[in-house]
Amino acid sequence: MSTADIGLIGLAVMGSNLALNIAEKGYTVAVHNRSPGRIDEFVAEAKAQGLDGKTIPKYDLADFVQTVKAPRSIIIMVKAGQPVDDMIEQLLPHLEPGDAIIECGNSLYTDTQRRFDYLKPKNIGYLGVGVSGGEEGARHGPSIMVGGSKEQWHNAEPVLTAIAAKFNGESCCAYLGEGGAGHFVKMIHNGIEYGDMQMIAEIYGVMRDGLGMDPKACANVFQEWNKGPLNSYLIEITGHVLDAVDDQTGKPLVDLILDKAGQKGTGMWSAVVAQQMGVPATAIEGAVAARSLSSRKSERVAAEGVYGKPNRAKTDVTLADLEKALLAGKIVSYAQGFAVIAKASEEFGWSLPLATIAKIWRAGCIIRSRFLDQMSSAYAKGEAVNLLVVPDFVTIMKDSHPSLRKVVAAAAIGEFPMICLSASLSYFDSYRQAQGTANLTQGQRDFFGAHGFEIEGRGTDLHGTWPSTLGK
Amino acid sequence: MSTADIGLIGLAVMGSNLALNIAEKGYTVAVHNRSPGRIDEFVAEAKAQGLDGKTIPKYDLADFVQTVKAPRSIIIMVKAGQPVDDMIEQLLPHLEPGDAIIECGNSLYTDTQRRFDYLKPKNIGYLGVGVSGGEEGARHGPSIMVGGSKEQWHNAEPVLTAIAAKFNGESCCAYLGEGGAGHFVKMIHNGIEYGDMQMIAEIYGVMRDGLGMDPKACANVFQEWNKGPLNSYLIEITGHVLDAVDDQTGKPLVDLILDKAGQKGTGMWSAVVAQQMGVPATAIEGAVAARSLSSRKSERVAAEGVYGKPNRAKTDVTLADLEKALLAGKIVSYAQGFAVIAKASEEFGWSLPLATIAKIWRAGCIIRSRFLDQMSSAYAKGEAVNLLVVPDFVTIMKDSHPSLRKVVAAAAIGEFPMICLSASLSYFDSYRQAQGTANLTQGQRDFFGAHGFEIEGRGTDLHGTWPSTLGK
Repeated sequence: MSTADIGLIGLAVMGSNLALNIAEKGYTVAVHNRSPGRIDEFVAEAKAQGLDGKTIPKYDLADFVQTVKAPRSIIIMVKAGQPVDDMIEQLLPHLEPGDAIIECGNSLYTDTQRRFDYLKPKNIGYLGVGVSGGEEGARHGPSIMVGGSKEQWHNAEPVLTAIAAKFNGESCCAYLGEGGAGHFVKMIHNGIEYGDMQMIAEIYGVMRDGLGMDPKACANVFQEWNKGPLNSYLIEITGHVLDAVDDQTGKPLVDLILDKAGQKGTGMWSAVVAQQMGVPATAIEGAVAARSLSSRKSERVAAEGVYGKPNRAKTDVTLADLEKALLAGKIVSYAQGFAVIAKASEEFGWSLPLATIAKIWRAGCIIRSRFLDQMSSAYAKGEAVNLLVVPDFVTIMKDSHPSLRKVVAAAAIGEFPMICLSASLSYFDSYRQAQGTANLTQGQRDFFGAHGFEIEGRGTDLHGTWPSTLGK
Repeated sequence: MSTADIGLIGLAVMGSNLALNIAEKGYTVAVHNRSPGRIDEFVAEAKAQGLDGKTIPKYDLADFVQTVKAPRSIIIMVKAGQPVDDMIEQLLPHLEPGDAIIECGNSLYTDTQRRFDYLKPKNIGYLGVGVSGGEEGARHGPSIMVGGSKEQWHNAEPVLTAIAAKFNGESCCAYLGEGGAGHFVKMIHNGIEYGDMQMIAEIYGVMRDGLGMDPKACANVFQEWNKGPLNSYLIEITGHVLDAVDDQTGKPLVDLILDKAGQKGTGMWSAVVAQQMGVPATAIEGAVAARSLSSRKSERVAAEGVYGKPNRAKTDVTLADLEKALLAGKIVSYAQGFAVIAKASEEFGWSLPLATIAKIWRAGCIIRSRFLDQMSSAYAKGEAVNLLVVPDFVTIMKDSHPSLRKVVAAAAIGEFPMICLSASLSYFDSYRQAQGTANLTQGQRDFFGAHGFEIEGRGTDLHGTWPSTLGK
């Protein structure tokens, strides 16, 4: 008897929360897991939440598949990598043409593309879906970035749209493009998240070491900023993190946490693909570098031993400057992230809808913000080649880049590291100038490698007559 | 009759110059080329230079191979990519166990590693060799970075050592490690070269637009700097490029060259591999980004239309500050490049000798400089984890980082783009501080993803009790 609207395999934290979310929205979901014990636990959980009527536990895979109404939508939520491939192979003998596998883990988009290409000739749909929002998001409403088989997307659309976060009543779930498009966009989402977090950390550094503010005072400022143009989930939780007190000592928790940041790899992936496509993503690169340098604590301690403590004189930047600097830096970082997405769209033929992407990031995901609402409205008026020249953002940048300058300059003099904000400023200054200095670079390249240069109206592969100095 | 000391296939510019260099050093070289016409041209060239006695043209591949004394060293100098694989296949039937193929093009190190692994079980040696110095270098003395089969290296060592550039009588040729080690080091050499060139361009920008200097005045300064600690090939040719006058108009050539820089990909490869290994290489990344942004001329012109001309008020930085800033920026960039090499050494088991690498870069190659002589001496005293903590360089950095600060701050305020120099400064400031701001980042990561944090003495996977705000 096929009674389930959808199936879900993999009942770890994210999978079980997604299943409960589906059931709560009124859809019947068949669930399966490799270890039967986890299925039992899930059954108890569903019962405790009054959702057992909408969940069908299945201990046998064939039986599980048969329980789902054809054409089937089967979500798999297992560990990224080989386990996904293994699960596909196990499922295949039980599926019928027209069915679809919906993979909702953090897969690398090239793996998703490969799986999509593998299943297409078998007439099995494959959806690679980025789900952002963590455990809470999975349970109550994540942002859902869908890529893959468009036909099968329509079968799963009602369920995925229902479980996603809502922004002003609009679902934060959308189909973005074929193959690996969904996981690609999720990857860049994470890269942008790295940039946001690092820029916040840099601003916090100036507050702490330049303005002499304690965590409570910093928390108050972030809570205040959360009412203005920076309003966002990350600013909100920054306020909470700075405000938290350690149970054992009564001290501010943030002062006890070791300054070594971890990373799971999506920031690095974003930086690599941006490089490979030739799109500058210096804010993401800077954020990845900052995490990496933070993790080398013992090297840093040794270096400080050699150079002495940074000479952090009180700075005269104001909190208003810091707020605007963060806003300007963020715009540049998003401009870079969206430029990477636009390039991927072109390179992989995905036709990725930039306004829609900004829209489905407005709620549910980690980078959700008021800012993204402005961005989706701005993009909806016509997509520009770069966010920096979208009229609404030009207005904000004109108002805020002077503050970014003041803050970066004060940091340079005051010995505050500012990897990400200075990368944003220098990208902006490189992008907004008609005349740069690459004329010298081209002269040098022609000098030592005969690479040629262009003179307007005279040709593109001209050469200078250079003295030979190589023999010296 | 086997009479040649070495063979060389591929008589385009680089190959024919290498062959003439070999002949001039007294070794007999058999040469071959796919198109016989090019062989004829080479014969004429060799004759004109009085080197025909030491060159043996061979039109048939089998005959060519037989002419080289066993165990054979056969240099191939063909286009990177498929042509190299094709040439290996063509050569294989004619080679005997113990012979070696020496590939001297700009191959990606992973391709070299693959070819090395392919030929090893056949008992054919494979050397992947990075050759830097352009056409003139190939003819009169390049820097030669050797990787691959150590046993066969010893057969080719006398010839390669003889043709390389000399620094104080020492040959700029060395065996660096197995497999792709030589091409890896050459790739990072090019990445560092990108950084050097971009930092020079940024300094030139301040001279031109901030100090109002004309190209001749800039040229004089670079020529002067070439007598001091910045003494290097790139500073020298910068003086020449800025000094060059256009024949047609009598104007400074550099003012006519379009500010759109090209790139061949080795900078991007360096940035990608650094990211993949988790080593921050922000100066290389910045340089690649700067070239990429320079190439988007029409976008830049449009952006300037929107934002107006940069407001480049006269700056009060001095030429002495600019000189020291360039030196400090360069040290950080080299620190990053050498850190990438050190990590690759560890990751691929190459045992790359850092002091030797600095040594063979002192002459012949594009980044050759007095600075590299200091670096090889410093490393010879004991290799440090990072160049920034090598005593001799600590001294230079202590003297020069205040100038780098002044210049980056002035650029931020004065609206000069400074992608690469600001990336160097912020790397330095992140690296030399014992206490950073990643404590906040870890608090945030634990808040939204339960990723855990460390408190000294209390554990490494601790969690905060955070308010749930995700449902809001």
